[in-house]
Amino acid sequence: LITVGAQHGLYLIAQLLLDSNTIFGIENPGYVDMRNVARLTSATVNPLPVSHQGLVLNDAVNECDYVYVTPSHQFPTTVTMPIEHRVELLARATEFDFVIIEDDYESQLEFSGYPAPALKSLDSSDRVLYVGSLSKTLAPGLRIGYLVGPAKLVKELRALRRLMLRHPPANNQRATALFLERGHHDSLLKNLRRAYKERLQTLVIALREYLPEAVHSLALGGSSLWIKGPENLDARKLREYALQAGVLVDSGDVYFLGSERPLNYFRLGFSSIPNGHIRPGVAKLARVINDMGGSRSLGQ
Amino acid sequence: LITVGAQHGLYLIAQLLLDSNTIFGIENPGYVDMRNVARLTSATVNPLPVSHQGLVLNDAVNECDYVYVTPSHQFPTTVTMPIEHRVELLARATEFDFVIIEDDYESQLEFSGYPAPALKSLDSSDRVLYVGSLSKTLAPGLRIGYLVGPAKLVKELRALRRLMLRHPPANNQRATALFLERGHHDSLLKNLRRAYKERLQTLVIALREYLPEAVHSLALGGSSLWIKGPENLDARKLREYALQAGVLVDSGDVYFLGSERPLNYFRLGFSSIPNGHIRPGVAKLARVINDMGGSRSLGQ
Repeated sequence: LITVGAQHGLYLIAQLLLDSNTIFGIENPGYVDMRNVARLTSATVNPLPVSHQGLVLNDAVNECDYVYVTPSHQFPTTVTMPIEHRVELLARATEFDFVIIEDDYESQLEFSGYPAPALKSLDSSDRVLYVGSLSKTLAPGLRIGYLVGPAKLVKELRALRRLMLRHPPANNQRATALFLERGHHDSLLKNLRRAYKERLQTLVIALREYLPEAVHSLALGGSSLWIKGPENLDARKLREYALQAGVLVDSGDVYFLGSERPLNYFRLGFSSIPNGHIRPGVAKLARVINDMGGSRSLGQ
Repeated sequence: LITVGAQHGLYLIAQLLLDSNTIFGIENPGYVDMRNVARLTSATVNPLPVSHQGLVLNDAVNECDYVYVTPSHQFPTTVTMPIEHRVELLARATEFDFVIIEDDYESQLEFSGYPAPALKSLDSSDRVLYVGSLSKTLAPGLRIGYLVGPAKLVKELRALRRLMLRHPPANNQRATALFLERGHHDSLLKNLRRAYKERLQTLVIALREYLPEAVHSLALGGSSLWIKGPENLDARKLREYALQAGVLVDSGDVYFLGSERPLNYFRLGFSSIPNGHIRPGVAKLARVINDMGGSRSLGQ
């Protein structure tokens, strides 16, 4: 089903399938708008922990009716779920009778050349609803997303889509179809991967030099790095001060669910920053952190 | 608020404002998808009768919390609500504390040159939510609609829109803005009005000649004629037989709410039929009706 962006696919799924009897599992930290969309329904939202290998497969997963997961690049930590975990998650979906909502966030921005297979591609028993998007590669403004699921469910989702807005704009569907069909999107992806990989390497090297105390997730792709500062760092203040210095940092507290939100995480995006601007930007960021209380504030 | 077509505006309003305590009044015959959108919520839908002057202002109107109305060209009958009725409906909205949802369907396709003012333009006490569209003039496929209401409500609707699909595609918003700003839409409207007026006249003259027994609503604009056949006509069968003869007729039963649906109404669209094809089409339609049982089937 073509949707008005991936968000629209998630909204359609939530409106059609969730009710007051539903336990909806979501990664924590995770995509807060998925939580907000689920909360428009009467479902119970269960935050599930995330490790350096993505969603942690603990007992809480088994109790869910739906599990929302971003396996390619976990949002916001960017880590990739290993193939063994994917196989186990699928086995559990069958054993404990839950449905996986696979938001294949930034799957196409994979730099190693060895992408893990999508859960949907391993799904032999219709346990996975797959949501994808062209927003991270072609253009977010076009609002072109898609959803893959059992034909019977897609029929119902299409009926709901029709009542909601009839259909996604036809001209954008047509233009995107031609762009894909003629191979332009594949070419674009090659260029994006090359450019983003270079920017990520520049960023990692600059961090090692200017902020050696910063602990960042192992990113094999994506468009940003997730960075853990020391316990006493308030990334909301860092965001504010960095902005004044011309560096945009995304503070990480908003991605945590529940009342206890760690304040010492932040995100550095690199996808729309020319390679030459990255190193000077990190140098500026390091100065801001020093001014906030010395390198100790990050290194303690 | 810009929406993905007028339908999207109606959906947003229904999702945000309707609940199990809501009585939602809707014209009968009327826009069935408005009924269907309202039924996705737990609101009570009250069908309200329609006359040759649009919505009938009876006591049932006063008991509604929301009244959905298509005053410019009532859908599907195409009749226009007189100014006196508009003023009275607004006065009642204040007196009986209800909100009017004005779907200004085909308001721009007005041929007399003296359009009645929109309810929203007469609304001095924020009693009207106005829903408009460019689907009937510029292009339905672009899915560009809009909603006008109190700023506080629009803020909430925008938040819901954001969770649903973030925003309508930016390229289509931009292109439409330029098209409107540079006056192209005004030129288009002039051409459409001239062409449609001519087609409507041709259709009315052809009906008088070939189907003199047909009773049609007085249309001062729009894109179709609403026609009442005799009591024993089954327009669903007419639709089927006419299609075989190459004439597309819209049977009217689907626009009635409730269990008692008259079968003898049908709609003839003229907006996308070249003027020269209209007269031969009506001649064909008359032959089909004759074959269905003689002119008596329409004239009894």
